[in-house]
Amino acid sequence: MTNGLQIAFAGARIDRADHIRADPEALAGLTNWRARLLRLNGLSPEVDQDGNLAWGTLADADPAAELVFLGVLDGRGYFAAVAPELIGSVAPPNPALWQAIGQLSPEDLATYGGARSLVDWHARHRFCARCGEATVLNKGGWQRSCTSATCKGEHFPRVDPVTIMLVEHEGRVLLGRQPRFAPGFFSALAGFIEPGESIEEAVKREVFEEAGVIARDVTYVASQPWPFPSSLMIGCHAFADDPAITIDTTELDDARWFTRAEVAHAMSGAKDGAYIAPPARAIAHRLMKWWLTR
Amino acid sequence: MTNGLQIAFAGARIDRADHIRADPEALAGLTNWRARLLRLNGLSPEVDQDGNLAWGTLADADPAAELVFLGVLDGRGYFAAVAPELIGSVAPPNPALWQAIGQLSPEDLATYGGARSLVDWHARHRFCARCGEATVLNKGGWQRSCTSATCKGEHFPRVDPVTIMLVEHEGRVLLGRQPRFAPGFFSALAGFIEPGESIEEAVKREVFEEAGVIARDVTYVASQPWPFPSSLMIGCHAFADDPAITIDTTELDDARWFTRAEVAHAMSGAKDGAYIAPPARAIAHRLMKWWLTR
Repeated sequence: MTNGLQIAFAGARIDRADHIRADPEALAGLTNWRARLLRLNGLSPEVDQDGNLAWGTLADADPAAELVFLGVLDGRGYFAAVAPELIGSVAPPNPALWQAIGQLSPEDLATYGGARSLVDWHARHRFCARCGEATVLNKGGWQRSCTSATCKGEHFPRVDPVTIMLVEHEGRVLLGRQPRFAPGFFSALAGFIEPGESIEEAVKREVFEEAGVIARDVTYVASQPWPFPSSLMIGCHAFADDPAITIDTTELDDARWFTRAEVAHAMSGAKDGAYIAPPARAIAHRLMKWWLTR
Repeated sequence: MTNGLQIAFAGARIDRADHIRADPEALAGLTNWRARLLRLNGLSPEVDQDGNLAWGTLADADPAAELVFLGVLDGRGYFAAVAPELIGSVAPPNPALWQAIGQLSPEDLATYGGARSLVDWHARHRFCARCGEATVLNKGGWQRSCTSATCKGEHFPRVDPVTIMLVEHEGRVLLGRQPRFAPGFFSALAGFIEPGESIEEAVKREVFEEAGVIARDVTYVASQPWPFPSSLMIGCHAFADDPAITIDTTELDDARWFTRAEVAHAMSGAKDGAYIAPPARAIAHRLMKWWLTR
């Protein structure tokens, strides 16, 4: 919860137990028959008949799989496996995934999201970026280490900060649509934070790049992990004095100002209004909800 | 400026001109005799007699260097070079670096910081993490592309979000010292945000892991890039109800609660008080200043 907002992909109950990761003996002690293994189908979760994440035991893992330590709950170790068939693959979300995770409780969604990001990172980071040699999983999956004795490079899971923002002008809010969006959908503008920028600078740059709008008075609203593959969405609000829009057509199909009534209509779930709102799992949905209650 | 705070390593004037990066013709048009090249000594900046960043021309770059496009200012292209001698090296900051950058204006410090992160990333990411093949610089240095025709992996500069927080209990604030700190120095607790966490969750986890303190009511204060090598510092405030501290001795030498008077004394630059404050370039300094004026 942030500012009274329920945030998707956050709120996992498993204790990350950071001190276990670097303690091989403690980690081995948890890697036992009582440990639970997240059941995955590719990178998608298996869901049981009650709509919960399905868990098995370590015996279910492919013997060639690497094990990632997710943490501890009620004295048990929780793990996910980097299965050989995932290695090197790129698995963007698909409609079946959205359907599967739509059944999950907020807590299970958070557990799945964190595990997915980690497993996916291991699947796509097999070699040392510094020297090109093979790397091996280390510290329960929270590091990969180069196998070259001269390099000894250490690599850590990525978290990519992304700004996503509602810009407001005289009671209307700026939303845009990317070419990949289904017809009618609009969302908050967003973009990766670059080296050498603060959050506030990144918000201003993105709004100007994508829509030609000058944003001021940027404030932070809420954050949410987005595990496709490893974003940290940082939700902000800003004001604009000049509503003139110049769209960057390489990024956006369209960008417009929407009234409070239009946003309220879309957020009611209506598909017949000025636009269709993003789903509840997206922080853009939460930002719109927050904006309506201000 | 965020909440009236001057933030170090932010505020660069060079336009990042994102649209140029993906336009080889436009980029080539700026890669000319008028272009300016950041003068570096290793990864440290060269500073002229007026205390400004020193710039040369593209002719100054090693012919074997890769060029990174920093952006455009007054119609000129601005670049930095990834010199062959930097390849594969790890160059943490040293006292000479702190002295050099201590002379820079806020704007030059921001330009240098962004350039340093990018050049350092290229120097340490020469190979495809997915398949191990060599990568080449692409899009003006904002991407590296795998040279394997079957892999075609694309890699982007890292920005690692880090939470740093002042936790408050009955008017006192929690600060800690890492073993590497010079004697007497204390700073805000901090740690990397992990996959599957919101900013607020990461703050609570770090405070509990490092000091055994339960934090509540986390709020965002300010952010700052920290280019050693590529952190985005996300400064927060939180409250604690129970002041009992249990130090994680693998992370911290000490952690204590400091009164407002003790913080004010340290922030005056005094070295004879309860602790010595971090320098102005650190966001921890800005957080302490913000806390005193609340």
